[in-house]
Amino acid sequence: MRFDIISVLPGLLESPFAHSILQRAQKKGIAEIHVHNLRDYSTHKQKSVDDYPYGGGSGMVMSIAPFAACIEHLKSEREYDEVIFLTPDGETLNQGIANQLSSKQNIILLCGHYKGIDQRVRDIYVTREISIGDYVLSGGELPAAVLVDSVVRLIPGVLSDETSALSDSFQDDMLDAPVYTRPADWNGHKVPDILLSGNEALISKWRFDQALERTQQRRPDLLQDKD
Amino acid sequence: MRFDIISVLPGLLESPFAHSILQRAQKKGIAEIHVHNLRDYSTHKQKSVDDYPYGGGSGMVMSIAPFAACIEHLKSEREYDEVIFLTPDGETLNQGIANQLSSKQNIILLCGHYKGIDQRVRDIYVTREISIGDYVLSGGELPAAVLVDSVVRLIPGVLSDETSALSDSFQDDMLDAPVYTRPADWNGHKVPDILLSGNEALISKWRFDQALERTQQRRPDLLQDKD
Repeated sequence: MRFDIISVLPGLLESPFAHSILQRAQKKGIAEIHVHNLRDYSTHKQKSVDDYPYGGGSGMVMSIAPFAACIEHLKSEREYDEVIFLTPDGETLNQGIANQLSSKQNIILLCGHYKGIDQRVRDIYVTREISIGDYVLSGGELPAAVLVDSVVRLIPGVLSDETSALSDSFQDDMLDAPVYTRPADWNGHKVPDILLSGNEALISKWRFDQALERTQQRRPDLLQDKD
Repeated sequence: MRFDIISVLPGLLESPFAHSILQRAQKKGIAEIHVHNLRDYSTHKQKSVDDYPYGGGSGMVMSIAPFAACIEHLKSEREYDEVIFLTPDGETLNQGIANQLSSKQNIILLCGHYKGIDQRVRDIYVTREISIGDYVLSGGELPAAVLVDSVVRLIPGVLSDETSALSDSFQDDMLDAPVYTRPADWNGHKVPDILLSGNEALISKWRFDQALERTQQRRPDLLQDKD
């Protein structure tokens, strides 16, 4: 799977892709992540990529020309399944969307900045708009990193222990049960006896009950019927 | 405002805090962001910070001792308003929570990994659990960066143009209207005439109507009464 990320701040994305699972996925050849500097596609002398908004108002708007040039260049080299714009008014990312995207081959991600990008980029090039949540960030770079992380870890072969991803929160619409490790007694705070009992059936039931209780308390919406 | 982030992968957070608004906020002295390597607080020879889960199952669980040592060390130096654990089963981050946190002084953020952290860390130390969305990530580092970004940009003096944050999506429970910049005609794709009219009242009305329409289409939930 290949991601091409178009950003005005490519340096911001250096360390997130150089560690942990995203690094391993790239080393194994399972995922390719390319970050493109939008300014390289500006034809302005100053390499500017934004301009004042038509109709006035605060903030700058990212211009269509550099995005168009970069996207056209990438599309001339291979087919893309999706051109995704990370934006707070997109559909909200969830585990289902991550699962869906993990079966794609090539995806372009556009990172916005300032007050947004010229609407025509969205109308002409973007096939899908995704938000990582109902909050505003400085730009689309962290959302792009979050989306890539959520998707790449689901590709078979990326996680060392494949059962790990399947038992994650949300994969079965339930939150995880509490987990404990040594020591069994930490300054008087003890691990629940049942986890030390060695009785697999009881432990399994306890975990299910705890997961259900936690989901009921914290996220009853996950237990309701989905459309 | 000060953030202390406790992580097993501090390197992952290097570039996100070294660019853009987070860099500027630190240079201006408005925000301090300190990343602590959890392994520095391990007393094991191998600096390990995790162990097998009690009761069996896949994945490793992060131990309480290193978290306890790091948190106690930080608390001995100053008072903290919150100790936040980033976890998919926490309350979902939104603009209201970001606003709320932006008025705090000192916040500790705990980044989880593997199958989670020993429940006793959560019971004893954590004051608040926050999720950035309904999807699973490799660790709490990107969520910590997202939370810091969403909060820091709201602190007065961080954004160069203060009106910018106030007119963002979500601040008034409405998505933004489309934005456009030059050229007015791009390969036949034109900017709406009204934005070129110079009539401020009409432009203002158009923007409100567009924002309302977009919110109704994409996020009708934002327009419903909140509790």
